[in-house]
This record gives sequence, C-alpha cells and structure tokens, in this order.
Amino acid sequence: MKTEKLTREALTAYAAENREAFEALLKDFVEIPSVSVDPTKKSAIRENAKLAADVIRRFGGESRILETDGHPIVAGAWGKNPLWPTVTVYNHLDVQPASIETEPWKTEPFTFTKQGDRYFGRGTTDDKGPALTALYGIKAALDAELPVNLRVLWEFEEEIGSPSFEKAIAAHADLLATDSVLVSDTIWIARGKPACPAGLRGLQGFLFTLETGETDQHSGVCGGAARNPMAELMKLVAECFDATTGRVKIPGFYDDVVPPTKKELEDFRRSGFTVAGFKKDHLFKSLRTKDALDLMKRIWAQPTFEIHGMVGGYTGPGVKTVIPPSAEVKVSCRLVPNQTGEKIAKLVTKFVKSKNKDVVVHVKNRLDPYQGKTEGPLAEAVKRSMKFGFKREPVFVREGGSIGAVVTMEKVLKCPVIFLGLSLPEHGYHAPNENFDWEQASGGMASFTRYFAEVASLGKPSKLAKPGPRPAKPAKKVAKKGKK
Amino acid sequence: MKTEKLTREALTAYAAENREAFEALLKDFVEIPSVSVDPTKKSAIRENAKLAADVIRRFGGESRILETDGHPIVAGAWGKNPLWPTVTVYNHLDVQPASIETEPWKTEPFTFTKQGDRYFGRGTTDDKGPALTALYGIKAALDAELPVNLRVLWEFEEEIGSPSFEKAIAAHADLLATDSVLVSDTIWIARGKPACPAGLRGLQGFLFTLETGETDQHSGVCGGAARNPMAELMKLVAECFDATTGRVKIPGFYDDVVPPTKKELEDFRRSGFTVAGFKKDHLFKSLRTKDALDLMKRIWAQPTFEIHGMVGGYTGPGVKTVIPPSAEVKVSCRLVPNQTGEKIAKLVTKFVKSKNKDVVVHVKNRLDPYQGKTEGPLAEAVKRSMKFGFKREPVFVREGGSIGAVVTMEKVLKCPVIFLGLSLPEHGYHAPNENFDWEQASGGMASFTRYFAEVASLGKPSKLAKPGPRPAKPAKKVAKKGKK
Repeated sequence: MKTEKLTREALTAYAAENREAFEALLKDFVEIPSVSVDPTKKSAIRENAKLAADVIRRFGGESRILETDGHPIVAGAWGKNPLWPTVTVYNHLDVQPASIETEPWKTEPFTFTKQGDRYFGRGTTDDKGPALTALYGIKAALDAELPVNLRVLWEFEEEIGSPSFEKAIAAHADLLATDSVLVSDTIWIARGKPACPAGLRGLQGFLFTLETGETDQHSGVCGGAARNPMAELMKLVAECFDATTGRVKIPGFYDDVVPPTKKELEDFRRSGFTVAGFKKDHLFKSLRTKDALDLMKRIWAQPTFEIHGMVGGYTGPGVKTVIPPSAEVKVSCRLVPNQTGEKIAKLVTKFVKSKNKDVVVHVKNRLDPYQGKTEGPLAEAVKRSMKFGFKREPVFVREGGSIGAVVTMEKVLKCPVIFLGLSLPEHGYHAPNENFDWEQASGGMASFTRYFAEVASLGKPSKLAKPGPRPAKPAKKVAKKGKK
Repeated sequence: MKTEKLTREALTAYAAENREAFEALLKDFVEIPSVSVDPTKKSAIRENAKLAADVIRRFGGESRILETDGHPIVAGAWGKNPLWPTVTVYNHLDVQPASIETEPWKTEPFTFTKQGDRYFGRGTTDDKGPALTALYGIKAALDAELPVNLRVLWEFEEEIGSPSFEKAIAAHADLLATDSVLVSDTIWIARGKPACPAGLRGLQGFLFTLETGETDQHSGVCGGAARNPMAELMKLVAECFDATTGRVKIPGFYDDVVPPTKKELEDFRRSGFTVAGFKKDHLFKSLRTKDALDLMKRIWAQPTFEIHGMVGGYTGPGVKTVIPPSAEVKVSCRLVPNQTGEKIAKLVTKFVKSKNKDVVVHVKNRLDPYQGKTEGPLAEAVKRSMKFGFKREPVFVREGGSIGAVVTMEKVLKCPVIFLGLSLPEHGYHAPNENFDWEQASGGMASFTRYFAEVASLGKPSKLAKPGPRPAKPAKKVAKKGKK
C-alpha cells in the first residue's frame, strides 16, 4: 500500500494530471445518446455499454456486459482477494431524453461542451460524470495498491425504473457478490455543503377506473340522470386527501410513519436547504408551505397522495359537452419508513371501495421505502471521505424520490447500500442545460479514493456492518422508477 | 282551397304516390357528406346547399343561398300574400361525422340504404329526413291551395352549434320575416307516442384553470410540498357539486329554477318514457336514479353541473409520477327556465374564487334555456296535426339539450317557435346506423300539411299568438351547440 498516494495533496495532483483524460472520456460518454426510454436509441445504449466495458479494461479491470430482458448492465472488477473487502460502486449510464428543438438548451445536448470548469451535455451529472469520477477514484486506489476489491455496476435502465435490474442481478449474484454498495447518483442541497441521503421514499402507484356506460353521451340529453365517471373519481380523490394541505384522509395511512429523529432534523436544518432555492430550482409559483423545515419534512420524511393524470372525456380546446362512459385517474403514494407498499395498497383499495363500490383499483408499480444508515462504520467512512474531498462533513438528509435499484441491491446482493453523490441542484438533473463541473469531479475523485481506503482499513468482509432490520418488506416488483 | 285534398285518406294516398320520389330525394341528400365539423367537407356542404336550393325551385318555390361567416343557409319561399299567415319550417341539413372504419356501421354511412320501410345513412333522421318530409308536407299544402305563405329555413351549422346563424338571420331579417317557426329536429320518447318539446335546457360552459408551476416536476423530489393543480381542481369540483347525487352545492344555483307544472308532469308520465328504455338507448350501466319521473325531471327540468374533461398531467399507459405545472377542467351547466347563463356564470365564478383564489374561471359558450308553449293556438294546432298524422295526441315533454337556433329565431325573427319532430329513439341520432322510416315520414307529411292548414285557418298574422314574456334574457352569443 502506497499511503503517500492517498494524501489530499497527492490526490489533488492526481486529479489535475488526469483532468484532460477525464474530460475526453466524459465527452465520449456524453456524445452517445443513451436515452433508455427511446426505442430508437437501443443501438446507442449498446454502443455505450461496449465503450464502458472497453474503458474498464483500459483501466485494468475485467468487464462483462450482462444481458437483461431490456438494456444491458456493465460489470467491472478489479481484484479478487478473498481476504479483502469488496466494494461496488453503482452508477447508471442511461440518460433522460433531450432536444434542443423543443427544450431551451443553449448547447447541443449530445455534444459535450466545456465552458471553463463546467461541462454541458445530457448525462454529464446524471449520471455519467459521477460514474467516471468514481472510475478515476478507483484508478487512484489501484495506484495506491489498496487492499480492497473494487467493482463497478453500471446500469442502463435507471431512467425507466430499472425494469430488468432485479432479475438480471439475481441471475448474476455470484459474479456481482460484494460486501457493500456505494451509490453515486444523488444531489446535494447546495454547493459546498456535501449531503448524503439516508433514506429514500418508496412508491405505490394506482389506477382508479370507473365505467358507467359504453359510449360518450350528450350532456343535454342525459345530463342529470347519467353518472359522470370523471366527476365521481374527482369526488373520490377529494375524499382520499385534501389537495390544499396534502393531508391524506385514508384511515391508517400514517400509522407506520417513523418521524425523523432529532439528529436527522438537525442535519436537515444544516443542509443548506432554502424554500426560495427550492421554489426557484423547480419553478414553482407557490407551495403548500413557506417553512423550510416543514418543506423538507414534506418532501423527505412524509408520505404523499398524488394525482398524475386523468384519462377520459374531452381534452381539446374549449368545452365539448360530452359525458364520457369511463374515466381513469392516475395516483401514487410516496412512502416513508416504515410504510410498505403492500399495506398502503390494501388501505387505499379498501377505502376507495367503501366510498364508491364501482371504482376498480388497479395496484401498480411498487417500491418500498429505503431507510439508510447514518451511523456505523460505512456511514462514518462516507462522512470522512466527503470531508476529505470537500473540506466539510456531509449532512444526512433524505431523498424524496425512490431508486428501485437500491432496495433491489440490498435485497439481492444482501449487503448494505450507502450513498456518495456529487451532483448539485444547479447541475439540472433531467433538465435542459444539464452540466457537471470540475470542482465536483476532482473533489469526488479524492472522496472516492479515500472511501476505498476507509473500507480497506475496515478489513475483511465479516467486520463490515451488515444491513440492519429492513423497515419494509422487499419490493415485490421493480417497476416504474422514482429516481430524481 | 281544395279541402278534399286535406283529408287523412287523401294525404295517405298522396304520401304513397310520392314515396318513391321522397326516397330518391332523401338518397340524393344523404349521399352528400355534409359534415359541418369537418373542414374537408366544405365543398360537400356547398353541393348540398345548391341541391337544396334547386329542389326548392323544383317544388315551385323561390330559393336563396344565404352566405354566412361559416357554412351557408338555404331559404325557400312559397307565397307572399300579406293577408295570409307566414310559417317557416326550420331544419338543418348538416350532419354528424360518421365512419364505417371506426364505428359499428352495418352499411356505408353516406350510402342511402333502404331495408324494407327503413332508410339507413347519416342524416336520414337528423335532420334530412324530417326536412324533406316537411317539404312534401308543403307540396301537399300547395296542391290544396292553402291560404298560407310557406317558408323553409335550412341551416348547415346546427351540428357545430350554429356559430354563424344569429348574425346571418339578423342580416336577412326582412327576407326571413315570418309569423311563426316550426322546428322539426326533435325526438319522440317512444314509437307511436308523439311528443313535442315545450322547453329546452340552456347551457353555460366554463374552463377552470390553475397554474402552480412552470414545468413538470417529479413527485418524489417535490411531492408533498408542491401544489398539485389537478388535485386542487378535483377538490374544487367536489366542492361545487356532489357527483353521486348530481346536487349542485353552489349557493343560489337553484334559485331561479321553475319546477314543471302539474300538467307538464302528467304529460311526462304519459310520454312513454321508461328507465329501462333510456338506459338501453344510451348504453348506461347504472344511473343516478331508478325512478322514471325523477329521471325525466333530471334530464328535462333540472339544471346540471357536468365535467367533460381534464387537461394536464400524464395520460399514457400506467402511472408516470409527474406533478403537472397546470391543469384545466372543462365544465358546463345545463340551465332550465328561468335560469340565465349570465347569473349562473357569476355565481360559479364567485364560488370558485371563494374556494381557490388561484383558479381562473373562463366563462365559455352560453345558451339560455327556452321555455316553449304548451297552450295557445299554435300549441293546439301542433296537437291536432300530430293526432291527425299519427292517430294520437302528442305529449309536451322537454328537451334536455339546447338548440341555439331556437332562442335565436325567437329573438331575431320576433315570433313564436314551436316544435313538430318526427325522429324516434331507435333512429340513432348521432349514432352508427342512423335511420329514418316510412311510418314517420308518411305520418309526418300528413301532420305538416295539417299544421299548415291549421295555421291558415288561424288567419292573418295579427291573430297569431305572440311570444310570451321570455323566461330568460336573450343569449349574448350563440356558440357551441347543445342539440341532441
């Protein structure tokens, strides 16, 4: 072990030396439009997977492209010493769609554009930049001859909810065996204030459908006597929750909610979160609350009842006086520890039936919430690593969204999952002009290398923290995504 | 006057003699696809208008094609004797769209298909068949040398809400001057039981819109803090009315409603209306009521609050967990005498603002309700004429829909408007396999001729009933249609 290569100075110099190569590699990755939702981009995904596998080999690792029912997964491995701990870094290399023609991009989304320390392009921050940052962290760890087996697990279906992920990693559980997973796909609250999620909300989707006739009817001829399925579903939604406050009225809905601890609330307060910033970042005109802590609790630590769309009737210009024969409302609940999708689905279904017996509840996509660790050796290792890379200890916040892969990895790979994210709110996740920057990349490289050193120093797998009691049953089905 | 030509026997023989010619003419009209809503059918409308004008001349009348801001109007005239009363028969010659490819037509909709006594094709019953039936009624009246000036007013925009009608007839008010109008575009409740509407519901359309952000947001990242405009509109709708019962909760909404008289309710009961028939005709699975009289009151004599559609969010398959930045709900109220669109618009707007100040209410299409006559010389004339043609006196019911042209003609032509409809529920207004039949056509010819004789016997215009006090202010704007 070459400890001299692990100092802040050495790793800063290492990052600077590798900056050009990092940027060139990021350019190669960004310029492949690996848009997982777009069926016409299948070959681009394939191309990106091949490049990724090549790059792992170039970095001295072994790589495999694992086929799935959908887009492939790329697995990379450095080291196979059974006496060393194994750590796997999870990233995804698929990206959101982007178009300069329909969205306000200032540069071509699939052209890597460097402007000073900023790198513009789709995927720069979500999640190709962090993936390649981790790769350079691995390279430095290898250079330092750290006694740790390193792995990368690069998915290409994260942006579509990881539909093939669970089956694929279960099929390759031996190959992918690891002692812990480090997920690098999350966002800080503010630049200069490192933050790690210590919990993810889950998700339970529903369709409520109601059919009262067979064809459109005229509201003059039948109106008053005809049932109106859209209006009945609206009434039902209003019975389920108060849209003004967000309060869910379904009995038992909040029963299993574990409120954040005092320590967590302190971290929330120190996270750098502001209401004005949140409002601006997401272009809201107004919100359900003006209080920062209340807002953080609402998005990170409380469940929701949300309406996403309604199908039925007339949606063209003006008013067409038709009574539709059927309607559907698209609903989901974000869940928090210790809620489970299973129980919430039962409660919602029962409640809906009690209010309108003709409404059919279709239980859809389910992701149980994830309660991460804020204590223990790995959490401490992340804290020290981020402080090492960014000069400030991270706060543990929560992630309002859901990352299906996290719950899946914990369940299938039977190991703890922890987070080391590098993205910033101004990087524009899923937005036009997505970007990443050198400050986050270089600090990130140092943090990753330090984390691998921390894990190495923890020694053999048996000493590693095992996952605590899961707050929720394992997800039955990895379906639609919920990741920011 | 040749009274021998006015007996039931003579008119039955007249109808039989003219049956082939009537069918040939109906074929010519039906086979022109005069679909007013379809911009590609403009020339078909023009062709039909020319044919209609030609036919009027063939029947010995003078005809004019009146240009409007939209599709033309055809006016026909027989007789100009200032000592005679003038009666105008209103029909429309435009039709609903129809397609054998997307709808369950058993025959080509724009091919006239005779099957025994039935005539299939788009427009056969709505409203080309009744128009040509009236024309043959006029011919018989001319043959009998009745002392009455006869007119037809054939519109080509009824199916799109008569947007150009008011302006056009106001511009030609002198040409179109008449002592009364007979509208033939309504449906009986059951075969063998003649029915005339003595009232039409009005309409007040609204769009409720709410904007709480600028772009779609992620329900994981923002859910709980973000306002959900769809859900807030759903809550608002539930505050406006109870979708289960249909009861409107807006204060003052029912204040001006004039309940049907005892006599009207008796007529409702005698109309042949059945809940089972209504349910079957309109393919409903269930209704808000199982009681026939309650149902008739609901569709004919009570106002409604109806939801027609909601715009916003995700409407594809499954659940996509997006929070939309804005939403719109399409609403309309059917109105009954003495409600006015103006007052209802004010009440609804005020109520909505009191519940959610950020919701914008857009007041849209307005048609005031129409209170027809069930008594007086013209109503008696219609009663006797229908009994003459169909062996049974008609009941006066109501029409749940709105016919913009009716209110317009009463206002602009300053004369009473009365109804003599011939269509039956099984004729399939607006539906696939629309049809008309010889029983209705031949009985209708006799009824029309008898009506012209009745009007002739009433003598000079000054003796005719003048319109009573209008229950509502004249419609400000003739907009979207509401005709059955």
